[in-house]
Amino acid sequence: MTAPFPALWLRDNCDCAACRDPRSGQKLFGITDLPADLAVADTAVDGDQVTVTFAPDGHVSVFDAAFLARPAEADPRSEHAKADPGGTVAEGSWPRFRSDPLHREHCLDAVLRLGSVLLRDVPVVPGAVLEAAAGFGYVRETNYGKIFEVRVEPAPTNLAFTSLAISPHTDNPYRDPVPTVQLLHCLVNDADGGESGLVDGFAAAAVLRAEDPAAFAILSTTPVTFRYADADTDLTSTRPMIGVDPRGAIREIRFNNRSTQPLRLPRAELDAFYAAYRAFATIIARPELRVDLRLVPGDCLVFDNTRMLHARTAFTADGARHLQGCYADLDAVASNLAVLRRDPVGRLAALFGGDGAADYLGEPVTLAEHMLQAATRARAAGADDALVAAALLHDIGHLAGVVTGAELMAGTDNRHGHTGADWLARWFPPQVTEPVRLHVAAKRYLCAVEPAYAAELSEASVFTLAVQGGPMTAAEVAAFEAEPYARAAVAVRRWDDEAKDPEADTAGFDEFRPLLQRLLR
Amino acid sequence: MTAPFPALWLRDNCDCAACRDPRSGQKLFGITDLPADLAVADTAVDGDQVTVTFAPDGHVSVFDAAFLARPAEADPRSEHAKADPGGTVAEGSWPRFRSDPLHREHCLDAVLRLGSVLLRDVPVVPGAVLEAAAGFGYVRETNYGKIFEVRVEPAPTNLAFTSLAISPHTDNPYRDPVPTVQLLHCLVNDADGGESGLVDGFAAAAVLRAEDPAAFAILSTTPVTFRYADADTDLTSTRPMIGVDPRGAIREIRFNNRSTQPLRLPRAELDAFYAAYRAFATIIARPELRVDLRLVPGDCLVFDNTRMLHARTAFTADGARHLQGCYADLDAVASNLAVLRRDPVGRLAALFGGDGAADYLGEPVTLAEHMLQAATRARAAGADDALVAAALLHDIGHLAGVVTGAELMAGTDNRHGHTGADWLARWFPPQVTEPVRLHVAAKRYLCAVEPAYAAELSEASVFTLAVQGGPMTAAEVAAFEAEPYARAAVAVRRWDDEAKDPEADTAGFDEFRPLLQRLLR
Repeated sequence: MTAPFPALWLRDNCDCAACRDPRSGQKLFGITDLPADLAVADTAVDGDQVTVTFAPDGHVSVFDAAFLARPAEADPRSEHAKADPGGTVAEGSWPRFRSDPLHREHCLDAVLRLGSVLLRDVPVVPGAVLEAAAGFGYVRETNYGKIFEVRVEPAPTNLAFTSLAISPHTDNPYRDPVPTVQLLHCLVNDADGGESGLVDGFAAAAVLRAEDPAAFAILSTTPVTFRYADADTDLTSTRPMIGVDPRGAIREIRFNNRSTQPLRLPRAELDAFYAAYRAFATIIARPELRVDLRLVPGDCLVFDNTRMLHARTAFTADGARHLQGCYADLDAVASNLAVLRRDPVGRLAALFGGDGAADYLGEPVTLAEHMLQAATRARAAGADDALVAAALLHDIGHLAGVVTGAELMAGTDNRHGHTGADWLARWFPPQVTEPVRLHVAAKRYLCAVEPAYAAELSEASVFTLAVQGGPMTAAEVAAFEAEPYARAAVAVRRWDDEAKDPEADTAGFDEFRPLLQRLLR
Repeated sequence: MTAPFPALWLRDNCDCAACRDPRSGQKLFGITDLPADLAVADTAVDGDQVTVTFAPDGHVSVFDAAFLARPAEADPRSEHAKADPGGTVAEGSWPRFRSDPLHREHCLDAVLRLGSVLLRDVPVVPGAVLEAAAGFGYVRETNYGKIFEVRVEPAPTNLAFTSLAISPHTDNPYRDPVPTVQLLHCLVNDADGGESGLVDGFAAAAVLRAEDPAAFAILSTTPVTFRYADADTDLTSTRPMIGVDPRGAIREIRFNNRSTQPLRLPRAELDAFYAAYRAFATIIARPELRVDLRLVPGDCLVFDNTRMLHARTAFTADGARHLQGCYADLDAVASNLAVLRRDPVGRLAALFGGDGAADYLGEPVTLAEHMLQAATRARAAGADDALVAAALLHDIGHLAGVVTGAELMAGTDNRHGHTGADWLARWFPPQVTEPVRLHVAAKRYLCAVEPAYAAELSEASVFTLAVQGGPMTAAEVAAFEAEPYARAAVAVRRWDDEAKDPEADTAGFDEFRPLLQRLLR
C-alpha cells in the first residue's frame, strides 16, 4: 500500500496533532525540519488504516487507506479549454442567484467552466454591479475606480468610452496581475448598434495550436508589452498573448490591439510573430467561436477575463447607452463554488425539499414524491445501494441543471439524464450516475423492444417521448444494449414508470441518507 | 532605416489619426484589418522623419527616426533577481512619503527593485495600514477582509493567528491571482520574540538554479496544489513553487509548507520532487539570504509577496503583539513610480525649490545656491552642456537618495555621488552622470596630488573628507586617473569648491532648463 510513496511524502502528509495544527489544519513543520535520512521503519495495515513508523526518530503516522489511494485531482482551471459554449451564453437570474444556492452554483460554475454567465434582472440602478460582483467575489479596485462607466465621454482616455466599434479583446492586459473576472451591467441601451460579443479565447488558442502549432509556440513564448497611460496612470505588463502553464495547458489570453506596444525583435522574428498574430486574430474573428447578444437594462454579463474576449459593435453616438463595469477575481468564484459543493447529501435533501421538487410535470405526484417512490420500489425489489440511489436521483437533472422540467414540457429536450449524471459525478461513482444518464434512452429502448410498454406510458410521458426522439431504431437498440449500465438503466426506468401513484407508501428522504453517504466517492 | 522592420510592424505602429485615436492614444484597427499582402511601396527619409508609403492601399505613415531606432526595453520585473538586499531592508518614512515625491519614488522603487521597504512612523492607530496601502496602490480585499489582524486568537483558522514561529513563506499561494504586495503594520509588539524576517525568494531560486539546475527545473515545472479552507472559504491553486516566464526569468515564488497539498505523482517523480524541495528549503534557510528585523509600533513592512518570503519567530503567548495587514498589487506600485518619473526636468526644478535644497550643510550658501553657482561657473568657463549639467547636478544625491546631507554631516558617508549618478542615469547620458559619480573621489584625488588644494578646503569639507576616506593612496590615484571621466570630475570638483560664495552672481534654475532638456536620453 505504501510502496508508491517516499518516506518524505508520507511524513510530509502526516496529520497527527504534532505535525498539523488541529484547529487550523495547517502544517507545523517545514521540509528541512525532517531528518535528512528519514526512512520507513515499519508499515502495518489494519482494516482501512495504514500505520507507518519512521526511522530514525520513531515518529508514527496513521493514514486512511482511501487517502493514500486517492487519484490526482485535475486542476479545475485546465478543464476550461474542453468546454464548448456552443453558440450561446449560459443564463442566470439575479433574484434566484440570491435566494437559491443551486442556482448560485449554476452561475458560478458557468463562469469557471464555460467562461461566462449572463445574469438577468439585476436592479437597473447605478452601483448594482457592485452588489452582483459581491456574489462572485471581491471587487478589484483599479485606476478606473471600483466601478467604471462605459458610455460616451467628451474627452475619452479609452476607446471604451466612445461610440466606436471595439473588436474582441481582453481587458487590462497591461495589468499584472490582470483582473480575472469582469462584470458589465447594462443600465441603458437605446442606441442603434452597441451589440455585445464574446469569443472563447481558450477555444481559439486550442484551434491555433491544432492548425498552426508553430504560430501557437510563437504566441505562447514571445513576451509582448501592453501599456495604458493617462495623467495619473502608467501601467505596463510584458507577457505572451497566450499564457500556458508548465504542462502546456492554456491558462491566460491577453489580446488587445489597442494597448499592444511596438515589439522590438530581429527582423526574422518579427515576420514570424506577425504571421502568428494574424493567424490567431483570424481564428478569433471566426463566427463559430463568437456569441453575439444584446444587453438590455438589468442584464449583467459576468465573464472570465483571462479567457473570454469581449467586443461591441459601433453605435449611434447620440443614442443612450450606459453600462457600469467592475473587476473581480476567479479565485473567489472557485472558492464560493467549492463551499457550495460541500455536503452533497445535505444539498440533495435541500433539493428534495425545495420549490423545484414540488413541480408536477403533468403527473399526479410531485417530482420529489416521484423520485422517492421510485427509490422505495427499487429498495423493495432488493436492488443494491447504487441502484436504489440511481432510482432516487434519476430526475435530479430537472433540479440541478440549467433547464427546468417545465421547459421539457414546453417542448425542449433538456437531456436531464445527462445533466443529472454529470452533476452527480462529482460525488457518486458510475454505478449511480450511469443508470441516471441512460434512463431517458431506456424509455426509447423499451418503446422499441416492448410494444406493450409504449402502450402503457402516461400521457405526459408519451408527449416527452416525442421530444426525446421517439422509439429507438434497430441500430440504436444494438448500441444501447452494448452499454455497460444498460440493464441497470432499464431497471431504473421501470421503477420510474411505476412511481406516479399518489396513494403509494413512500419512504422519506432521510431514510436514504445513510445509503447516499456510503456511496460518496 | 526601415529594413529591420516588416511592413506589418510599421503599419501596426503607425500613429496617424486614422490609425490611432488622438485623444486616448489607442489603436483603432485590428491586425486582420490590414491587407494580407501589405508591403512597403516607398520610403523617404527627411531629417529625423521617415515617411513610409504602403501598397496596395497607399496609406502613408510618418515615423520619428528615434522611435525606429529605440532599443527593446528591459522588462522591469526581470530586473528583480539582479538586486541584492545586502543584509538590510530599505527604509522610508511615512510622513516624507506623503510630502516628498522623491521619497515616495524611493519607497516605490525599493518595493519593485529590492522587494521591500520598511516604512517608519505610520500612525499607530488601527486601520492606518489602509492609508499606507493607498500610497502604493489599491487594497485587494480577500476572505480575510480588507484588513487582517495578526494577533493571538482563541480559535485560530491560521497559524498566523497564534504565537507559534512561522518559517519563511509567501502568503496566499492558494490564491490565483496571488496578492502581489503585502503590508504589515505594527501596532503593538511587547512580546518576547516575535521578530520578523525576510528572505529574497528570487535570490534563493537563482542560487538553486546555479547550484542544482535539475532541482530548479523540477520546482519550476511541477504544479503543486495549495489550499486554504474554513467555514466560508475553499481556495485552491495549482502552480509550480518557482514560476518562470517563457524566457526562463524567475517571476513568482509560491512557498508555504502550511498549505501545500499532497502531491500525486509516480514514485520516481516524488523522490526527485522531494529532493528538489528540500534543496530549495535549505537555501531559503541560509542566514546570508535572510534579513531579520523587529517591528516596533508605527513600522509598516511593505513587500513583494511574489518574491519575498516572510517569517517570524515564536513569542510568548501572553505578550501583546498586534499587527494589521492588507494586500495590494505591484502593478499600481509600478504605475505610481512611472508617473513620478515623468518630466525629469520639472522634477529637478521641484528639487531645487524644495525644502531639501534649503539646507546649509555648514556652508554660507544653500544647497540649491551651491549647485546653481557651480553650474554658473562651469558655463562661464566655457564647459560643454554635459559638464555644465554635471556641475549643476553634482550634489543631487543629497536630495534624491535615501540618506540626507544632514546624515553625512552626522558622520555617515552617504555616497551621494553614486546615489545621484544612479538616479540621474534614468534620463541622462554618462557624460552627465559619471562626473557626478566621481566628484567625491575627485576631492580625495586632489588632496593627494595637490597639497595646496587640501589646505584651502572649507571647514565642513575637511570634516566630510575624513568621513569619505581621506586623501587617496598612490594606487587609488592611479586607478582614478584611468577612469574615462576623471578629468571631467576634477573640473566639476573645482567648480564645486568655488561655489560657496554668498555674494556671487548666480543663474536661476530656469536658465538651465533648455540645456537639461537637450541632454535627456
